[in-house]
Amino acid sequence: MKAFEKELQGRSMPFTRTREPGGTPLGDAIRELILQPSSSAPTARTELLLYEASRAQHVDQVIKPALQRQEWVLCDRFSASSIAFQAGGRQISEDWVVRLNEFATDGLKADLTVLLDLSVEESRRRRNQRESHGGAKEDRIESEADHFHERVRQGFLRQAKDEPQTWLVLDAAASPESLLKSLLQEIQRRKWLEF
Amino acid sequence: MKAFEKELQGRSMPFTRTREPGGTPLGDAIRELILQPSSSAPTARTELLLYEASRAQHVDQVIKPALQRQEWVLCDRFSASSIAFQAGGRQISEDWVVRLNEFATDGLKADLTVLLDLSVEESRRRRNQRESHGGAKEDRIESEADHFHERVRQGFLRQAKDEPQTWLVLDAAASPESLLKSLLQEIQRRKWLEF
Repeated sequence: MKAFEKELQGRSMPFTRTREPGGTPLGDAIRELILQPSSSAPTARTELLLYEASRAQHVDQVIKPALQRQEWVLCDRFSASSIAFQAGGRQISEDWVVRLNEFATDGLKADLTVLLDLSVEESRRRRNQRESHGGAKEDRIESEADHFHERVRQGFLRQAKDEPQTWLVLDAAASPESLLKSLLQEIQRRKWLEF
Repeated sequence: MKAFEKELQGRSMPFTRTREPGGTPLGDAIRELILQPSSSAPTARTELLLYEASRAQHVDQVIKPALQRQEWVLCDRFSASSIAFQAGGRQISEDWVVRLNEFATDGLKADLTVLLDLSVEESRRRRNQRESHGGAKEDRIESEADHFHERVRQGFLRQAKDEPQTWLVLDAAASPESLLKSLLQEIQRRKWLEF
């Protein structure tokens, strides 16, 4: 993502870089409620509604204004993550997640969703490495069992298969240079930028 | 409500007294986010999703367990308030509010909704009196303009008219004794208790 931002900067393309959950002061407060390991953890439906609340605020206060300013919006996680985590991982009915996404985004959809795909084993290895190098501890979602993360991964891959025209799946085990190259090729293919 | 609780206690009827938003530790944290007057106030869709998140947690952790224990549940505000405030007051499509209520409550509905109806003028007079007597200041919702509160009131009255079999409308300007008497009559009429 950083490398792609540099590409946009080099072309003086205005962009907004943001993330979910969070991206607004209220969204950051909601993010805290969702992710902290706590005795008052949200139940599955509550968790989904909190993600969607953070998303609605983010769409209204950050994403729509940026699009109106004609900027690119690079967002770390969006509606597709709720399908993967809450329908795939938590096994809430996908119909409900789709409907709540529609409400929270006010119908806004991503032009392109880039999936950095990684096996559950490799993903856990990287988190352990992060922690042993003094990085952040696993949050409440990260610390779910492997079978949860496997359902999440399959939830992402299935969406990518169902909507190939708006998804790009990259192997996250590849080098950063190779990942950037693949992303730029895809963007050129769509004629969004010339390289 | 207090007087009705005493009636239940006098009959050794087990009950749970609760409220929304809130009613759980996480719900109370969400309530803070919703009600505080703040520069990062939620937009209309975010506000609804936060109320529904608090409701989902409350249903899962408080209301369903109490019903399973065969208790009465006395809840200050429930789904009907979202219809009145978010569809009526904020003018979000009522279809959406109905669907989100269904998701958050997992389909659970109140057997009886008691509306303590009060004119907007009288309601504001009472809030001012509360404040001048050292009580709580108006929160973010209370401090909305009169035309907002008038739409909310009509939203409640319309629901009561549409579903007379599950609503009881009482004139909140009546004396506490008279209100309790009306409530007990309704409950006797429904054969939920004998008086």
